[in-house]
Amino acid sequence: MTLPASLLDSLRTIFPGDALDSGDDALRLAARDHSRHAHRPDVVVHPATHAQVESLVRACREHRVPLTARGGGTSSTGASVPLAGGVVANFQRMDRIVRIAPDDRLAVVEPGVTNEALQQALAPHGFFWAPDPGSAPWCTVGGNLACNAGGPRALKYGATRDNVLGLRAVAGTGEGFIAGTQTTKDSTGYDLTRLLIGSEGTLALITGATLKLTPRPAAVRSLRATYRDTASAAQAVARIMAQPVTPAALEFMDALALKLARDHAPDADVPEAGALLLIEVDGTPETVRFAQDAVARAARGDGLLALDVAADASENTALWAARKALSFAQRAVTEHKINEDVVVPVSRLPELVAGAQALAAKHAVPLVCFGHAGNGNLHVNLLPRDVDEIERGYAMLPELFALVIALGGTLSGEHGIGVVKREYLPLALGESTLALMRSVKAAFDPDGVLNPGKVV
Amino acid sequence: MTLPASLLDSLRTIFPGDALDSGDDALRLAARDHSRHAHRPDVVVHPATHAQVESLVRACREHRVPLTARGGGTSSTGASVPLAGGVVANFQRMDRIVRIAPDDRLAVVEPGVTNEALQQALAPHGFFWAPDPGSAPWCTVGGNLACNAGGPRALKYGATRDNVLGLRAVAGTGEGFIAGTQTTKDSTGYDLTRLLIGSEGTLALITGATLKLTPRPAAVRSLRATYRDTASAAQAVARIMAQPVTPAALEFMDALALKLARDHAPDADVPEAGALLLIEVDGTPETVRFAQDAVARAARGDGLLALDVAADASENTALWAARKALSFAQRAVTEHKINEDVVVPVSRLPELVAGAQALAAKHAVPLVCFGHAGNGNLHVNLLPRDVDEIERGYAMLPELFALVIALGGTLSGEHGIGVVKREYLPLALGESTLALMRSVKAAFDPDGVLNPGKVV
Repeated sequence: MTLPASLLDSLRTIFPGDALDSGDDALRLAARDHSRHAHRPDVVVHPATHAQVESLVRACREHRVPLTARGGGTSSTGASVPLAGGVVANFQRMDRIVRIAPDDRLAVVEPGVTNEALQQALAPHGFFWAPDPGSAPWCTVGGNLACNAGGPRALKYGATRDNVLGLRAVAGTGEGFIAGTQTTKDSTGYDLTRLLIGSEGTLALITGATLKLTPRPAAVRSLRATYRDTASAAQAVARIMAQPVTPAALEFMDALALKLARDHAPDADVPEAGALLLIEVDGTPETVRFAQDAVARAARGDGLLALDVAADASENTALWAARKALSFAQRAVTEHKINEDVVVPVSRLPELVAGAQALAAKHAVPLVCFGHAGNGNLHVNLLPRDVDEIERGYAMLPELFALVIALGGTLSGEHGIGVVKREYLPLALGESTLALMRSVKAAFDPDGVLNPGKVV
Repeated sequence: MTLPASLLDSLRTIFPGDALDSGDDALRLAARDHSRHAHRPDVVVHPATHAQVESLVRACREHRVPLTARGGGTSSTGASVPLAGGVVANFQRMDRIVRIAPDDRLAVVEPGVTNEALQQALAPHGFFWAPDPGSAPWCTVGGNLACNAGGPRALKYGATRDNVLGLRAVAGTGEGFIAGTQTTKDSTGYDLTRLLIGSEGTLALITGATLKLTPRPAAVRSLRATYRDTASAAQAVARIMAQPVTPAALEFMDALALKLARDHAPDADVPEAGALLLIEVDGTPETVRFAQDAVARAARGDGLLALDVAADASENTALWAARKALSFAQRAVTEHKINEDVVVPVSRLPELVAGAQALAAKHAVPLVCFGHAGNGNLHVNLLPRDVDEIERGYAMLPELFALVIALGGTLSGEHGIGVVKREYLPLALGESTLALMRSVKAAFDPDGVLNPGKVV
């Protein structure tokens, strides 16, 4: 599309100087995220204030021009790709940490601050913000809010939606508004805060967030358990989750993930096994060993091959080496990883892993299963190495999603829907649920200006 | 109003036998909750199935007749009073616990089960559901969902909104739908689950809920700390909340609340002090004393008068006697308690208590402050003893709410808005936020059939 000249004039007034960029490099960068989708916008703007975002949304609405928000561009679902062109609002300059209030266990931030920069600013106060996605150094808090990001720590401390008190945003109507509170309890009207979290910039653009903070545990200890097969490991996960000490992380790797890590990091002491659990417990220096003992007791059982218990922080690191090696190992196999993010009830994990492996064999595509077992949230990653495998990989996805739904699970635990899973949404949600979601979209964004083609 | 004959015919078909009741006793009972509001419905129906609720909503919508859901009738905000008459749907017969799945840490229930019956069913499995309102023996899970109920335990374990995975419901359109999942992570479309929680039956009628369960701690210990004044106690609350051991409860009583408890329960060993904190920590038998020590360290500081640390469960009970005595003591003072439920950031508690006491003096109405200090959620209860004091009490409320908003707080932490706080909602929420809430209401309930006159 070509932007109307009067819109471009308005945008240049709202975003003077280099706050508006229509150069080739800027458009090329804003066309992509970490998905395989790409589409160039017509112009990129860099908001610095809430008022600018209000003017921006009004201008785009007036001209019915698509407007897509963008943070670090690390989405794996195409959520930040401007499918229909138009304007991309890059929030990375709106990156202030406005206030850290330890007494109230909250921080007020702008959406463009990276997750890692926030964590570093919180550390001296003895706090952290729970979401810990693998992309923390690059992804922004705004992006975390957009897709309801998680990470290993979500098991004990919750994902993004569980760790936000309030938001400031601009709806697709162009109206700025405040949702939620500065308090940890709130029964004052409808919960618009959590409605916006995970809505991927389709309802409103978030310009500020009041985040719930968690005190940093003084002591952290890891355990590593290997099992004969996936079923034994999954039973251990269920045992661990049924006892009172909730681990801070409970990560799973299947045999193929282990083999991959071993092949590509021969020095990392990656064990051979049917399945592996990496477990982290935390607490105070006095109590953490009791937590470790409780989880170790639950990890023991039929099919256990070996249980390693870290005595200190350096041993923690050694036990996690297999998991760390896996990211690099996948990249070494292929540049065309199809990154899935399904979630099932914990008790259905054995069926998910067995079913995914059967589908991979049927479609002849390499596949690894690993991830956040305590939440039933596995990354079922296809690793196609050539065009044929890529084609077969995408052909397999509908069967994988059908399996997940049949197991009582859903399409995404922490990456979101974006464009890549949008066509599968009717598998997970009934027509009446989708119709309500479309009505909610229309209530916030009556002209369909915000991030068209995503989620609903 | 008089119901159209054709609607009554439809209702009699949907609700045969005693599932429909238009007798005087039934209408009188359904007219009231624990607020001072009352209005008789024209008929009461007792749904037993989701399909009946779909038919019910469709019939009421067709005739544009108001429909108000009701559980145990313990709302203090008038949320379950059918202000405009019409139909009351009493869900108390829909009280099955459908499934308890310890491996998946979830329970599937119908909305009419009482909070207490649910907790009793969960206990043998080693789990509880976090919300623990004082009305647990009588209030239903559906009511807890409707007002986002909390209780002391919400401090560590969250309120209702933090402890629900998914819902089944019927929107005001008459369409049944499913929101959320059976999993603890979900980034699949808009979060309709948390939107319904706290919406007080104005968007949809909930017919089923998948609840997130928490393992029961094996050991619980209490502490009781008295302080010279409210400011010292509030500073202790901030210190406690800034260290890593989050208490399971952190309750506050002001000097007047203590005096009231002492006067009415002379045997309960209620201390004399400017303010009191009751603190509960939990963990395993091996770790609970470390948690107790950590909290005790944080409780000590300027203004501390005495710190009692329970050594066992019976001593726990003794320390909580003051708090237990308070409910009865308030009832002994007056039958006309004005039960408030405001919430401020924890650091603003001293200003809230001082400000509320100043307003009570100005308006010459007895007032006690107590409640969930760790969440900044205080019950600021007016205790008027005669018609003049009642009048002055209600006249004081707008000033109290203005104070709360000025302190960065909001109108309700766990009771909701209902009818009693509806007129004050514009104090807490800007016009643009209210407009969005009204749009959401219209999306779910286009003809305004569900619980008219409440919330927005």
